[in-house]
Amino acid sequence: MNTIKIGLFGLGVVGQGIYRVIGRATNAHAEIKRICVRNIDKPRDLVIDPALLTDNADDILLDPEINLVVEVVDDAEASYRIVTGALRRGIPVVSGNKAMIARHLPELIEMQRRYDTALLYDASSCGSIPVIRNLEEYYDNDLLLEVKGILNGSSNYILSRVFDHDEDYADALRRAQKLGFAESDPSFDIEGYDSLFKLIIITVHALGVYVAPEQVFTYGISSISDFDIRYAREKRMKIKLVAQVVKVADDRFTMFVMPEFVSPSKYIYSVDDEYNGVVIRGECYDRQFMFGKGAGSLPTASSILSDVMARRHGYRYEYKKMDYLNLPSYTTDVMLKIYLRYPDEQFLSAIPFASVSEKFVSGTASYVMGEILLSDLIAHRELLRAPGVFVANIPRFFLNLDD
Amino acid sequence: MNTIKIGLFGLGVVGQGIYRVIGRATNAHAEIKRICVRNIDKPRDLVIDPALLTDNADDILLDPEINLVVEVVDDAEASYRIVTGALRRGIPVVSGNKAMIARHLPELIEMQRRYDTALLYDASSCGSIPVIRNLEEYYDNDLLLEVKGILNGSSNYILSRVFDHDEDYADALRRAQKLGFAESDPSFDIEGYDSLFKLIIITVHALGVYVAPEQVFTYGISSISDFDIRYAREKRMKIKLVAQVVKVADDRFTMFVMPEFVSPSKYIYSVDDEYNGVVIRGECYDRQFMFGKGAGSLPTASSILSDVMARRHGYRYEYKKMDYLNLPSYTTDVMLKIYLRYPDEQFLSAIPFASVSEKFVSGTASYVMGEILLSDLIAHRELLRAPGVFVANIPRFFLNLDD
Repeated sequence: MNTIKIGLFGLGVVGQGIYRVIGRATNAHAEIKRICVRNIDKPRDLVIDPALLTDNADDILLDPEINLVVEVVDDAEASYRIVTGALRRGIPVVSGNKAMIARHLPELIEMQRRYDTALLYDASSCGSIPVIRNLEEYYDNDLLLEVKGILNGSSNYILSRVFDHDEDYADALRRAQKLGFAESDPSFDIEGYDSLFKLIIITVHALGVYVAPEQVFTYGISSISDFDIRYAREKRMKIKLVAQVVKVADDRFTMFVMPEFVSPSKYIYSVDDEYNGVVIRGECYDRQFMFGKGAGSLPTASSILSDVMARRHGYRYEYKKMDYLNLPSYTTDVMLKIYLRYPDEQFLSAIPFASVSEKFVSGTASYVMGEILLSDLIAHRELLRAPGVFVANIPRFFLNLDD
Repeated sequence: MNTIKIGLFGLGVVGQGIYRVIGRATNAHAEIKRICVRNIDKPRDLVIDPALLTDNADDILLDPEINLVVEVVDDAEASYRIVTGALRRGIPVVSGNKAMIARHLPELIEMQRRYDTALLYDASSCGSIPVIRNLEEYYDNDLLLEVKGILNGSSNYILSRVFDHDEDYADALRRAQKLGFAESDPSFDIEGYDSLFKLIIITVHALGVYVAPEQVFTYGISSISDFDIRYAREKRMKIKLVAQVVKVADDRFTMFVMPEFVSPSKYIYSVDDEYNGVVIRGECYDRQFMFGKGAGSLPTASSILSDVMARRHGYRYEYKKMDYLNLPSYTTDVMLKIYLRYPDEQFLSAIPFASVSEKFVSGTASYVMGEILLSDLIAHRELLRAPGVFVANIPRFFLNLDD
């Protein structure tokens, strides 16, 4: 086992965290040899040897001493170029870019095989919680039924401020950005795409199946209103942004990201602030709950460090489940029960509910509660982004027995 | 990767669970080739091919086709003979016997190296929660500060029944045994030894240091009284049986198992019934909480299955941390704050408190709250088992900043 010599791409919030964490972890036998940044002269809080910095990727990719690329740039296209460039040269990579990974995972898996190298990305999903590694290594059996959780620390922080501290939505968002929880493009967090990308990655390691992001219903929290919040409170529930992949039969699974009414008896009810929480449900072990910091510089960096140290021992994801016989297939032919706040009756008539169990009309706001096919939600997803509309899932027995 | 052909030792609650789980997990490519039991003719609920059964260990140990021994016998001495017998022949072993492993771990590690084989025992600690694997593989860095949790499902079940359901202690114990949570010798669970053995194993994988069981202060729940329970309730706390290993300085750590007053803000407060919960605290990631079923046939069997599947990929614990430079050393020179219910003033005068902050005397019961060295608790551990005595830890800031 040699020293890991790291070429680091990116010196933003996470990159600076990595620089600090690697410095502290004396038994890691890892050192950062070069750091590639867009702008060398940008003022930084971090005191750093200027000789470490470069703006030329080749100073890392062509350095024969560097045996690991760690990539934490914010831009998904740059991330794709860096990661594929390194893999093509046989250099192992640790990446935290969920958007890039979720979009390109089949190709990235193929490249790892072709160039006999490794791409690790545990930090991409749930920050410091080792979800990917455990799904890949520990829940590697036929018993897995469901992975469900709060995967985005930023939107969860905002909902916590709004729900528990009566804060205004815009104030909460600003505060999240100030604390460094929110991505530079907040819509990424708030519209559910960050959770979606993590869910895509989780599903590959949970069930061995890749589903492209655009095939998955994704609905965020940006249109939540005081009315929705009051309604949830009256029912003694919280609204959380929940991502889930669920086996609905032996040979079929479904997945989606949307706000959900969560009752106090559920594990994820108490996942507040910037924390993430994931429930892994299986046939014999029932429910496992993993909980930890999902966002922020140092928690993410400590997860990157775990991947770096795994490389010292030659660890790579084997994607074993993808080779399983009888892989389940993705379906959207699933009936959900949802809460829909709607602007007017004309809007409502365009939404093909299978049945409506509750309807409330008032001058302030109107909502229905009813059953609808997930495929119909997908077909109408543009319409559901109209002003005055908010959708939330109501967990039901056939999908989530008693989670 | 070949099919794993298992020689199973033991067909009790866990052994039968393994038989069922292996049958269900079609992608595991594992089969049970032979099962060694003490009494072949014992009536069993399980319908099983009698040709699988043997009462001769050599039918497994000398079978060249068997490439994995799974050992779940109840008796620690038999477990030691089976595990060392297999390792000496170079056969990898999966074991769930925490008492045996905790007592013999240094020798078992040495044997794995000498005979170039593997012993996996994730099922030995916290049933279905992958604590050992994550400490070994994921929290493999210098950042770890503390592992603390409820490691024994049976005593936790009993405390939950007593605390939340006003049940009588003896009734709760009987119920736990009936449900198969309690070991055949209940004192193992209730006096804290089961938690202790798990803590010994966890400490090896958390900090790379082995501490012999008899060096660790271990105090159980068998002497808890209605007075203690009422007292905790008045303070809006629960009493839980908690095991913990904590770094108290860069170069020192301490560990102990004892009842603890737990306030509602702590993660482990809501770990009820037969569940286990473990908090892993580190420098950068703060707190990770893992929660799941710690006892019972199928949860334990699913954890055994994870170890079996890990063997398909040649996985073994590397015990990397044991080779670290500057390993921290175990200390009992640590001041704790405890609650002590005592029978009379003569007893109290024998206990060398450094200071007493609270004293209550009544005809029903008397207690003090005060500071005492852990080494003094150890020196007086026999005395503390006298009738009318109960000890519980009060977590303090210098040990557990704000856990």
